[in-house]
Amino acid sequence: MLKAAAGTLGAASLARGAAAGNPDNLPPNPPEWSRSLGPGVIEEAYGTPSRHEAHVLRRYVPWLTQDRQSSVSFTPLAEMHGIITPSGLHFERHHGGVPEVDPADWRLMIHGLVERPLLFTLEDLKRLPSVSRIHFIECPANGGMEWRGAQMSGVQYTHGMLSCSEWTGVPLKLLLAQTGLRPNASWLLAEGGDASLMTRSLPIAKALDDIIVAYGQNGEAVRPQQGYPVRLVVPGWEGNVWVKWLRRIEVGDRPWYHREETRHYTDLMPDGRARKFTFVNEVNSVITFPCPEKPLNGRPGFVEIAGLAWSGAGRIARVDVSVDGGDTWRTAQLQEPVLDKALTRFRIPWEWREGERAFLQSRAMDETGRVQPTITALRRARGVESIYHRNAIHTWLVEPDGTVVNVQIDD
Amino acid sequence: MLKAAAGTLGAASLARGAAAGNPDNLPPNPPEWSRSLGPGVIEEAYGTPSRHEAHVLRRYVPWLTQDRQSSVSFTPLAEMHGIITPSGLHFERHHGGVPEVDPADWRLMIHGLVERPLLFTLEDLKRLPSVSRIHFIECPANGGMEWRGAQMSGVQYTHGMLSCSEWTGVPLKLLLAQTGLRPNASWLLAEGGDASLMTRSLPIAKALDDIIVAYGQNGEAVRPQQGYPVRLVVPGWEGNVWVKWLRRIEVGDRPWYHREETRHYTDLMPDGRARKFTFVNEVNSVITFPCPEKPLNGRPGFVEIAGLAWSGAGRIARVDVSVDGGDTWRTAQLQEPVLDKALTRFRIPWEWREGERAFLQSRAMDETGRVQPTITALRRARGVESIYHRNAIHTWLVEPDGTVVNVQIDD
Repeated sequence: MLKAAAGTLGAASLARGAAAGNPDNLPPNPPEWSRSLGPGVIEEAYGTPSRHEAHVLRRYVPWLTQDRQSSVSFTPLAEMHGIITPSGLHFERHHGGVPEVDPADWRLMIHGLVERPLLFTLEDLKRLPSVSRIHFIECPANGGMEWRGAQMSGVQYTHGMLSCSEWTGVPLKLLLAQTGLRPNASWLLAEGGDASLMTRSLPIAKALDDIIVAYGQNGEAVRPQQGYPVRLVVPGWEGNVWVKWLRRIEVGDRPWYHREETRHYTDLMPDGRARKFTFVNEVNSVITFPCPEKPLNGRPGFVEIAGLAWSGAGRIARVDVSVDGGDTWRTAQLQEPVLDKALTRFRIPWEWREGERAFLQSRAMDETGRVQPTITALRRARGVESIYHRNAIHTWLVEPDGTVVNVQIDD
Repeated sequence: MLKAAAGTLGAASLARGAAAGNPDNLPPNPPEWSRSLGPGVIEEAYGTPSRHEAHVLRRYVPWLTQDRQSSVSFTPLAEMHGIITPSGLHFERHHGGVPEVDPADWRLMIHGLVERPLLFTLEDLKRLPSVSRIHFIECPANGGMEWRGAQMSGVQYTHGMLSCSEWTGVPLKLLLAQTGLRPNASWLLAEGGDASLMTRSLPIAKALDDIIVAYGQNGEAVRPQQGYPVRLVVPGWEGNVWVKWLRRIEVGDRPWYHREETRHYTDLMPDGRARKFTFVNEVNSVITFPCPEKPLNGRPGFVEIAGLAWSGAGRIARVDVSVDGGDTWRTAQLQEPVLDKALTRFRIPWEWREGERAFLQSRAMDETGRVQPTITALRRARGVESIYHRNAIHTWLVEPDGTVVNVQIDD
């Protein structure tokens, strides 16, 4: 297909290419930026992106954000490559603003149904056996504004409460082995040190499986907006249980039914009842190119459709892509390595003809056999009153002129 | 071992822990940072580390740096977790400063022994099939100041011309398939757009294998210091051939013997001859905790020795660690996934007794069977006149008081 598309790749012969851009800078001329010495090493204290990338930022939605201390900002997924989210663009969800934690005074208290209540300093944690894992984190409200229909303007807002980092820290099970669990220990409470004292109940079984008490994010210290100096990493589970600015873990024998697991973060069902403790982020995917922020305007020809897939239940097994709204599907290529509970990049070639209208969809399946539902099927099961855990197949409409629009298709 | 070390873990009972730090902030008191709302979402345009991490920076060595436009800055490896290097801390090596490239005027010219010379815009490249790979990059002069003896003060300077990123871009072989190679094409010249017009010759076979024309680094655009908007990624090969600010690839039938592959980046041997085109970064490793910047002062007990291993020839197969200067070795645990030509984190538990002197070493082996040599063996083969490709087993001396010093041991 690439070979067939060669004529429309856009790469120009030397003569044609030289006609665009500032002629002084184009080959074979040495461009102006090569005619003088640029800045040397570490002119900046800490490196930042090119000024030409200044538009690549987290953004918030004003009508969602009455108060920025309890709100969300979205990762610019349309501008992302690969699977790692740069920490400076990691989505934010705060319940009481970002606390300014002094690491020297920071302590983690573990108490409750344990043999030996303990306090850990940051240095204590860094001495202990550690692990590093690449995992996505997703707010369960990701896509939550789209239950009743398509309303968000682009992928940054339909899916941008989603990021992926390499996290490093101590397995929580090691800390619990130090404190010793009493026989009836079955739940724990994790409490954050922010102004909301954000608290969530978690089953001990998950702590004994893969929860990490993390101090590292993408190679350096966890960023303030992600919980500096220490947060929980709860692989595959909804972001609000990855408690930030972690200060206390209490061990008990039942859930605490705190505000953030009763009033919020429950799934209102069509019969008026609410599902509680729906921790797992179900299998999901979205196409990030093309998308509303990255249209095809004026450029027919070869396109590599690319996107992200993820599942809180395990590895992504397959992603199918449709350009006709789900009538026909082709299986995309997955970027190796495909990691457990990590973002997975998928890609598939396509030839777009100018004037062609196309409905782009992706449908992910994970290693447990879970498959993304259509929005119609999801509404049938869950109604439209919920805010959380909307993992429906997403549709981008490519208009004849190459514009890309967020739409929903009944099926 | 962890269980045995429990008594010396440092974690304190609630009563003892409360004695350290500012008592007002320690459990069970709510710390001062939880008593008022912190800043909300995206107060900053682009996220930055905590102000408590302001000491974690690239640094240069003044006596190495007469001129910052042609110099190097080092990654703070002692502060790094996992394998990803945050782009803001990626080591730098510039030959003529950092050019300010306008991406709208940027072009990649491919010409020479090709059927169809072509110019590519950045948008052209982004339409094409892409790959993402996690690879280390290392300057072959890494450790080059230590041929005659230990002289650098810490791991940032002995090994910090080393970073690892997720790189995204177009396989160079796809671009060469577009231009078409003439039958006698066997080498290529890559030229950068900086003031030095940095140029290196590379065999076509490597381009047809795994070279990437990269526009993405750790999820976002390649940073200016790493070649914005486009650089070569040449997996496993010395950093200077990963040409930054790439502007031109010429295809030929022999190497060009440019300045940076004759005057520089050759290996002076004991007989006065120089090896040329020694591209591969040989298998190497270093312990990053403990190290001179992260000593054990005043904290006997359990320590997780941790470090990084890497090989330009493939995957790391094994890392052995010694605490007695190489008399006895234990095999460390490798953090999965172990990726091809990527940094690999190794870890092994140790119990340090105060007053104990220890000589810490790590010895990596890769999947091809290459093993790190001792410094004595390397000097025997290569002499001491070289600057490049020093991959000897490295030694940290832990003094009885827990201070850590860079030393070399004859063997």
